[in-house]
Amino acid sequence: MNSVTIINIGDELLLGQVVNTNASTMARMLTQSGMEVCNTVVVGDVREAIWQAVDEAMHTSDVVLVTGGLGPTKDDITKKLLCDYFHSELVESPVALENVRRIFAVRGFELTPVNRAQALVPKCCEVLNNDLGTAPCMWFAHNGHVLVSLPGVPHEMEWLMHNRVIPKLQDTFETEIIINKNILTQGIGESFLSDLIEPWELSLPDNIKLAYLPVAGMTKLRLTARLPHDYPLSAFHFPLESLYQIAGQYIVGEDCETLAELVHKTLTERGLTLATAESCTGGTIASSLTAQAGASAYFRGGVVAYSNEVKECALGVQHSTLEAHGAVSEETVREMAEGVRQRLGADLAIATSGIAGPDGGTKEKPVGTVWIAVADASHTVAQLLSFPGRRRQQNIDRTVNQAFSMLIHMICQKH
Amino acid sequence: MNSVTIINIGDELLLGQVVNTNASTMARMLTQSGMEVCNTVVVGDVREAIWQAVDEAMHTSDVVLVTGGLGPTKDDITKKLLCDYFHSELVESPVALENVRRIFAVRGFELTPVNRAQALVPKCCEVLNNDLGTAPCMWFAHNGHVLVSLPGVPHEMEWLMHNRVIPKLQDTFETEIIINKNILTQGIGESFLSDLIEPWELSLPDNIKLAYLPVAGMTKLRLTARLPHDYPLSAFHFPLESLYQIAGQYIVGEDCETLAELVHKTLTERGLTLATAESCTGGTIASSLTAQAGASAYFRGGVVAYSNEVKECALGVQHSTLEAHGAVSEETVREMAEGVRQRLGADLAIATSGIAGPDGGTKEKPVGTVWIAVADASHTVAQLLSFPGRRRQQNIDRTVNQAFSMLIHMICQKH
Repeated sequence: MNSVTIINIGDELLLGQVVNTNASTMARMLTQSGMEVCNTVVVGDVREAIWQAVDEAMHTSDVVLVTGGLGPTKDDITKKLLCDYFHSELVESPVALENVRRIFAVRGFELTPVNRAQALVPKCCEVLNNDLGTAPCMWFAHNGHVLVSLPGVPHEMEWLMHNRVIPKLQDTFETEIIINKNILTQGIGESFLSDLIEPWELSLPDNIKLAYLPVAGMTKLRLTARLPHDYPLSAFHFPLESLYQIAGQYIVGEDCETLAELVHKTLTERGLTLATAESCTGGTIASSLTAQAGASAYFRGGVVAYSNEVKECALGVQHSTLEAHGAVSEETVREMAEGVRQRLGADLAIATSGIAGPDGGTKEKPVGTVWIAVADASHTVAQLLSFPGRRRQQNIDRTVNQAFSMLIHMICQKH
Repeated sequence: MNSVTIINIGDELLLGQVVNTNASTMARMLTQSGMEVCNTVVVGDVREAIWQAVDEAMHTSDVVLVTGGLGPTKDDITKKLLCDYFHSELVESPVALENVRRIFAVRGFELTPVNRAQALVPKCCEVLNNDLGTAPCMWFAHNGHVLVSLPGVPHEMEWLMHNRVIPKLQDTFETEIIINKNILTQGIGESFLSDLIEPWELSLPDNIKLAYLPVAGMTKLRLTARLPHDYPLSAFHFPLESLYQIAGQYIVGEDCETLAELVHKTLTERGLTLATAESCTGGTIASSLTAQAGASAYFRGGVVAYSNEVKECALGVQHSTLEAHGAVSEETVREMAEGVRQRLGADLAIATSGIAGPDGGTKEKPVGTVWIAVADASHTVAQLLSFPGRRRQQNIDRTVNQAFSMLIHMICQKH
């Protein structure tokens, strides 16, 4: 496999003002494309530091990917530096200039000399057109190594990686083809599942690897196949028939990364609608579903019932239930789920009520006590969770995942 | 200033499975403590790669912070490597053993030899007690340089940095004291604000720097003061009186990082309650408020009204309004805000309705068309936004920020 070093440039990364998501996005895309990321480096907007990082990487890696330092408002330190490093000179690229002109025309702005300077690139590089921005993407080939300079703006970087850089790297280095498949299982622990499917796992060919990725309440199986770069894709398939024969009753979905994605896919495919009644999760269930385009096809809506009055007036929870059992109780969460399902006219409903922390617990109901209910037209299932920690966001996220898991379980059993 | 290199170890980081939030969290904490992060490096769980990164960093930086490779289930590659690097030997640390015993007692598990091995550390290091986990935090002093090895689990790392590592670094290197103050302004553009407060900015002493950080709909002013390590803190104050004299009418809050935090603080302090009615933001307003501990003091609840039926039945939007103007309209969003405020019995309300994208637009109402309304008992203010892009999450986030901004504006004017 070809080795890659990623260099992300930016003072804001070293000050900790911005999380370096570019490194992980690029690493994931490269890994999926048959390249091996050996290390990633962050340096500030300092010429000596960038030069040293580039020089070291060009000696140790086949491919060096550099992001940042290409903006028009601050000094184009990366471009000039690479021009010097490769002993080249800056020339105006017709391709890059045409791109800058096009983008300014779309935005209705006049092209100033500062903007036109964006089209200057080292003579020795190849410009990979950046459809989304004015900063050019530059490909340098040097002594069998490749260096690519990309803008640091995440969506431009991602578009360029997907459409320009990865395909060209795959061509240049004839990388293996990597194919992944996720299979989500539910209702069986990781070690039991591992024992159950061991015969199938042992029968997998050498070029297919299996990984177990536990996600709150589920186990994700990830199959990764490596194929020669010229393998005819239509001739390949994962040997899933025998997996379904052994463990089919535990498989709830394929090709999803998250439970929110699986819920989205399942409800969309089956034409079922959903309503939510959230207390301790405070809208996180609704927002993680509606973050996905197309959620309006199945998501009727939800109520974030933070106060008891809202539980009564918006969800129809009985006053006597709240009095007798409290907001965090099986009785209340059942009435919440049934109430929101009926009132919003949905096939299915999820409800949560609990104490997310870090404070607010009592001796009987300590921080981390959470009730979840899922309901359809004919019955309601409730479950009590007791999280050990007091970390609010973690308790919220685990509750959301467990609620999705319960919903999937109900759908798979009955719908 | 003392220079720092951060080394994060982990194959999962190089595969892009996990975003390296540790690097930015550590960088932010170090910057705030008067240290300068010069570069950050990610390497895999490979002895040679870690050794090389450590060796290079120990020659170029005063302080080297290393995370990862300390887990009990996989090989303790970091600990053994550091033991070899510093020519030491592994010994059982009584402090670390007592900590492992304590944690296993709390969890009710029996201490196995594998777990007991967690208490082995290089003889030459000082153990900084990790109250949250069994992996020891190790401090090595070597030729005037310091290397600290921390677990990679984010909450353990963060706790150790805050409680153990940073205080000891500050003692050892007598670092400057850094004090930050955020001032949020609203209702004036960045360049106008800059002109207005220029006399005040020019009068700031040399050890206080001002930065402008634009946040959707607002400008955050960040003041950073650097003081000698032995400066008496009680004698220091930022010269804010003259800023308030010049620009007081635009200042909406101090000491907040985000608008959600400012809304949380403002509502809590003023004893006002809030309800939300969200269509295109899908629960993100509610979840970003309820992510903060104590939200129940002011947040009554919310309705995620994704379908028109829910807008009618749960919020009381009139059928005729939806028929005549559509869901994405000033009339509808006003009725949503007023309806949720009344029905949930809150002092204030926020409502959103729009087309977040990437699809679903029409010629009259393209993707990115969003209406926001905020309401109190006496009146309602609505605003139309037109985002140029089709990226769903970005449009949702901008809508949330603009809604918070409008709410703060209403509160500051009237409450």
